[in-house]
Amino acid sequence: MGTNSQEYVIGVDLGGTNTVFGIVSNEGNVVAEGSIKTAQYSKIEDFVKAGCDCIANIADKIGGVGNIKAMGIGAPNGNYLTGCIEHAVNLPWKGIVPLAEMFKNLLHIPVALTNDAKAAALGEKQYGAAKEMNNFIMITLGTGLGSGIILNGKLIYGHDGLAGELGHITIVDDNNARLCGCGRRGCLETYCSSTGVARTARELIQTSNCQSLLRNKEINDIEAIDVSIAANNGDKLALNIFRSTGEMLGKACANFTTFCSPEAFIFFGGLVNAGDLLMQPVKESYDQHVMGIYKGKAKFIISQLMDKNAAVLGASALGWKIIQ
Amino acid sequence: MGTNSQEYVIGVDLGGTNTVFGIVSNEGNVVAEGSIKTAQYSKIEDFVKAGCDCIANIADKIGGVGNIKAMGIGAPNGNYLTGCIEHAVNLPWKGIVPLAEMFKNLLHIPVALTNDAKAAALGEKQYGAAKEMNNFIMITLGTGLGSGIILNGKLIYGHDGLAGELGHITIVDDNNARLCGCGRRGCLETYCSSTGVARTARELIQTSNCQSLLRNKEINDIEAIDVSIAANNGDKLALNIFRSTGEMLGKACANFTTFCSPEAFIFFGGLVNAGDLLMQPVKESYDQHVMGIYKGKAKFIISQLMDKNAAVLGASALGWKIIQ
Repeated sequence: MGTNSQEYVIGVDLGGTNTVFGIVSNEGNVVAEGSIKTAQYSKIEDFVKAGCDCIANIADKIGGVGNIKAMGIGAPNGNYLTGCIEHAVNLPWKGIVPLAEMFKNLLHIPVALTNDAKAAALGEKQYGAAKEMNNFIMITLGTGLGSGIILNGKLIYGHDGLAGELGHITIVDDNNARLCGCGRRGCLETYCSSTGVARTARELIQTSNCQSLLRNKEINDIEAIDVSIAANNGDKLALNIFRSTGEMLGKACANFTTFCSPEAFIFFGGLVNAGDLLMQPVKESYDQHVMGIYKGKAKFIISQLMDKNAAVLGASALGWKIIQ
Repeated sequence: MGTNSQEYVIGVDLGGTNTVFGIVSNEGNVVAEGSIKTAQYSKIEDFVKAGCDCIANIADKIGGVGNIKAMGIGAPNGNYLTGCIEHAVNLPWKGIVPLAEMFKNLLHIPVALTNDAKAAALGEKQYGAAKEMNNFIMITLGTGLGSGIILNGKLIYGHDGLAGELGHITIVDDNNARLCGCGRRGCLETYCSSTGVARTARELIQTSNCQSLLRNKEINDIEAIDVSIAANNGDKLALNIFRSTGEMLGKACANFTTFCSPEAFIFFGGLVNAGDLLMQPVKESYDQHVMGIYKGKAKFIISQLMDKNAAVLGASALGWKIIQ
């Protein structure tokens, strides 16, 4: 299709099931995409080789891999400062995996890696709602609660690359607080995440007698989406679950503001599809709890990349960043 | 004394009682110092004029004001982004005072202003324990709990200049939590500050029967220093107060780490003179509460400027910053 003066990077969304490779233009268009099955590769060397094959394949569309300038990877437990995936529980490779270096050695382009929520924050800044923002907090509400914090225009990595684990702020401080996967009690993500919402639903079904559409389902099969459907049908219990979840999240955001007074909180992830069911109580609780000097300032917005391939776009934003 | 090729800035420590002007060399030596009585000037214009006179006076020592390159001011409620003091309760001037601009108009040098804790953080980075650090949290334990957060090598001001109010993180989340000057309940500084320690002492004296040296004092006259003296004399109640205060502060720091994973927490202020009485429980509680991935990483250190004119030095660091 004529000359190809356009530049591209690869964005990689590395998940427990699939790994998606997307070739992204600097306008943020995913011009080609391919994927491999993560769990099929018990040896990391085989995974990297299969990834490079996949890239070579899809790169035909842009005139070959020579037009690819860099690669950004978003991965669970990805550490930007080391370029390693560190002790990810849902991936086939144990311990510390120097993934950025391994891809770099085969592709001969700059490669960087970070975790999924940080990639989402970079994506939002490059292509989404945060283009003009230098201080914002991205909160991803999925299985867990992830976060990417951008301050003074830059992602916060901290001293060890592991900053921004807001899902593990202690929000309930007593001995009966929920046990978290991290081994501690009362972490925000045990309440405010898809898993947290389902957990709240199961608890309330078991400890109350109130009527609810949720009782039609086998208790252990209840998921956040069921709570969402029930709430949209006016189910009182389900509505209360979103209210209490939102209130807790709003209270947590009020504390985050004390730290860095962001221009906006940007929400992303499956739970955000609940829309105002969740966001309305978040905002009300925030206004109620935040310190006076901050009142009415922060925006609460939904990611502009919700319908797009946000994970690939986010990872690609990291790719652009390292060649700027 | 020969030629004067040395450059200088002015650091200003603006307090409710005194305002200290210090001329500071780039090695961090306060080569000349003067002060005026803040409260004597009900009109801000008179205060600024008196300040300029004071500066002209002490500048003789360095060959005149012409050798001064910039001015940094640390003031309560000082907002760096606006250059204004905003609604400070303990100063004679109400509302919003554009102090940086007023000094600039008279002195014809760059002038910047920030709050005291942020100035302390800048001072620690330029002259103290944080010279080589790009990610740390400064915590000042005085009448209140102030904080200055430096990440990616830069102070965090947030979207409105008011970031870093860690004294107002909600640490006790129930209806009986202590009322704070900010109008909310359970703020960290109502427990972890000189005022908080005295408050704890008075509460414990009134609600327990245990023996204590603190009972020798009129209850409303008990201050943090009395608790410190009693603790150093082995008084059990006083020791417990430092223990519980330190435990709460350590728990709060564990949450701060989740946010930004700093290399160090640096402590400054009157309460820090209690030394290990306070710092030991802070560290123990931090280790107990912090998420596993961060364990054993952050340093807990005392400011290296505790014996020096830290407030003037901190403000001067801001002065250097704006002409870099």
